[in-house]
Amino acid sequence: MNAVRVGFLGLGTVGSGAVRALREGRERIAARVGAEVIAVRAAVRDLSKPRPVDLTGLELTTDPLAVAAAPDLDVIVEVIGGVGVAREGVTAALRAGKAVVTANKELLAKHGRELFALADEHGGEIAFEGAVAGGIPILRALGHGLAGNRIREVIGIINGTTNYILSSMTATGRPYAELLAEAQAAGYAEPDPTNDVAGHDAAYKLAILAMLSFDTWVDIDAVARDGITRVQPADIAVAGKLGYVVKLLGIARRRPLWSPLEVAATGDLPPAPSLARRGSAEEGIELGVHPTLVPKGHPLAAVNDVYNAIFVEGSSVGRLMFYGRGAGDGPTGSAVVGDLIEVARHRCNHCRAALPPLDADLPLVPTDEVSSRYYVRMRVLDRAGVLAKLAGILGEEQVSVAQMLQTESDADWAEIVWITHPTSGRSIERSLARMAELEVVVEVSNVLHCLESGE
Amino acid sequence: MNAVRVGFLGLGTVGSGAVRALREGRERIAARVGAEVIAVRAAVRDLSKPRPVDLTGLELTTDPLAVAAAPDLDVIVEVIGGVGVAREGVTAALRAGKAVVTANKELLAKHGRELFALADEHGGEIAFEGAVAGGIPILRALGHGLAGNRIREVIGIINGTTNYILSSMTATGRPYAELLAEAQAAGYAEPDPTNDVAGHDAAYKLAILAMLSFDTWVDIDAVARDGITRVQPADIAVAGKLGYVVKLLGIARRRPLWSPLEVAATGDLPPAPSLARRGSAEEGIELGVHPTLVPKGHPLAAVNDVYNAIFVEGSSVGRLMFYGRGAGDGPTGSAVVGDLIEVARHRCNHCRAALPPLDADLPLVPTDEVSSRYYVRMRVLDRAGVLAKLAGILGEEQVSVAQMLQTESDADWAEIVWITHPTSGRSIERSLARMAELEVVVEVSNVLHCLESGE
Repeated sequence: MNAVRVGFLGLGTVGSGAVRALREGRERIAARVGAEVIAVRAAVRDLSKPRPVDLTGLELTTDPLAVAAAPDLDVIVEVIGGVGVAREGVTAALRAGKAVVTANKELLAKHGRELFALADEHGGEIAFEGAVAGGIPILRALGHGLAGNRIREVIGIINGTTNYILSSMTATGRPYAELLAEAQAAGYAEPDPTNDVAGHDAAYKLAILAMLSFDTWVDIDAVARDGITRVQPADIAVAGKLGYVVKLLGIARRRPLWSPLEVAATGDLPPAPSLARRGSAEEGIELGVHPTLVPKGHPLAAVNDVYNAIFVEGSSVGRLMFYGRGAGDGPTGSAVVGDLIEVARHRCNHCRAALPPLDADLPLVPTDEVSSRYYVRMRVLDRAGVLAKLAGILGEEQVSVAQMLQTESDADWAEIVWITHPTSGRSIERSLARMAELEVVVEVSNVLHCLESGE
Repeated sequence: MNAVRVGFLGLGTVGSGAVRALREGRERIAARVGAEVIAVRAAVRDLSKPRPVDLTGLELTTDPLAVAAAPDLDVIVEVIGGVGVAREGVTAALRAGKAVVTANKELLAKHGRELFALADEHGGEIAFEGAVAGGIPILRALGHGLAGNRIREVIGIINGTTNYILSSMTATGRPYAELLAEAQAAGYAEPDPTNDVAGHDAAYKLAILAMLSFDTWVDIDAVARDGITRVQPADIAVAGKLGYVVKLLGIARRRPLWSPLEVAATGDLPPAPSLARRGSAEEGIELGVHPTLVPKGHPLAAVNDVYNAIFVEGSSVGRLMFYGRGAGDGPTGSAVVGDLIEVARHRCNHCRAALPPLDADLPLVPTDEVSSRYYVRMRVLDRAGVLAKLAGILGEEQVSVAQMLQTESDADWAEIVWITHPTSGRSIERSLARMAELEVVVEVSNVLHCLESGE
């Protein structure tokens, strides 16, 4: 094989950047691959639209399926996004036995299993490093470098837009809506921001991280998902007083939970309390995207603006963190070109990377059984005996309090903030429902998750 | 192929851990590889020594070369260390066309080029993720995930022992020798600590990072190398006052230096001053291991104890950081087993990973031409006009001062600490030589490198 011929589905900024990178890095890439890697054809919606790259030698067409299945192409780069044409194109390419490079997190989170199966059936492969955390090579690490580990948990700040907005809220004390508008003006948030701010984007990425960490398929619709729209400046301020910052975290944990360090030290299962604290010892995974209080000493607390970071804990490797820009043309383009070099090399050597094995078939732990610390902010009437009533309910529901802060107000109510020890979603929900019925409770202002310092 | 047969050279804690991991992860690994991966034989020095792993089914011998070249073995794992028997064993294995997994940084830093050539010639491969930063998959990232980038610089805390000692010195204010003794007692430092504390280990790792970042062979003997033995509690204390912590950093930079963000923004070369500040625009690499002042706001400043971290800046990806345990049986074992899974998979698929292309042939920039900020602590007589004399010399040698701190003492001398703007090694050396000749200078107590906050 003298050249690896590449077709593009879509030619936006990431696609154009990849075409440019192939041209500019031509010799270096050829040396690594063992053949030249050439951008041959691209399917675009608008042939006349100006592109930020020299199109010489690149054939443009408006028919993505023709590109996807073209017999003269070896590799297809899908940078259309979404699950419509992108899915059809990737499916056609895989059916034709091609290698596919994509950064489409929604496509993989929703249809990954069927696409991996297609790739397997037709001898192709799918590389998708750019789908999670931009240029941070976290998927390759989970799928290959850490393959000798049993992964315990993955905790990630995996959406740059929401991290930018929460960082700004923390720095300025200003409300969500104002900062969203600024982020939109600056191009850090979409005109319709739902996909980011409601946690969809983070949930897609978390599902992909969980698949690679735990070798299991994840039903994206079953992932607990919450966004940042209900985070108020008051929450950020009081969290700060208590020693926390608020971040949108995606957390994936393998049950039964065990501490690899304890196991390594004793060669035995961890002592009962740490299992008990975490709830049942049944097999499964916990998955959730939630605005979460992060202790200021935790490395994730210092990850600000559009940066992403992913914490991984594995049985032999212990704790790792990967940090970098999670989105944008440069970082995503870096991942796409890295994937392109790899699959091109495989084509030349008539081999392919392992497809993610999704055969562990682990059930998702229902939200109300997942154990977490909780932050609760509420307003109560400023009367004697109120605290005793609230504490009584918490005690009956087995919720134990780790931190509490009460502040006076000018009105006749007081604000109370609790941070609980780990408790089930069910217990916290029941406690709050019972409290809300009390006459002395004016409102439950907000409930957020809270990370333990040791996590 | 129904099984991939593995031979071990050495069976210490990392080797034993890998044998155990292969056995315990048998099914999962077989699913990833497409065949069982079996530990068949191990060469050890002492057949009767008890091993921390069940040896059933594992044949022990005292002849490493017989294992290395055995026709019934597909993969050789070298965990002997050093460049004697290890080099002979790896050479024999590569000559026999086998895949080699090793975590031997000294072997690769000293003989990597010849070993890569041998692998190439005989169709084998070498995987060596464990050689740098334990379980952190940084080499795979540089060689594959970031292959579409031009790497600008790599800055690493890549020796756990020295980071542990410096962290303890910072936390307690106690002197080096005491904390070294404690680290030795705790097993964090070797009985002969030279390899760690004199910077040899970090230099080997830095050379390997530079090879993969810049596609060039590095002459390990030419790498500027300095250890931590001369770092005094007084340096750590005064650095703290000025807003820095002291870390042993390995720094590798590609010249001419450019800021990828500037290039991306303007599509043009960076403005002249930033090139000029860095010295010449000639092609080359700067490589050095030095105890260095790190600004407290820099992410590397928070990397303590035995943890390692590596900062990478690439042309498209921007800044990345990788953080985790850099040594120890678990982390290194994680890397070795990850490599083993990968090369076993390649064997099954009759392919191999790309060997590092070392053809860029970049010269090493001589130390006295490398630009850096410097920290200088000196004692001077407490007399009028001293400062003017010192400042006069700095001015004449084109050294510009960024920060200065003078403290009184009970004696008739004062302590002066300078932090300079970036200057060449030659200028700082000349300045200090001229200052030392002044009658008013009692002593130049210490000179350390200093990282810029923007780096």
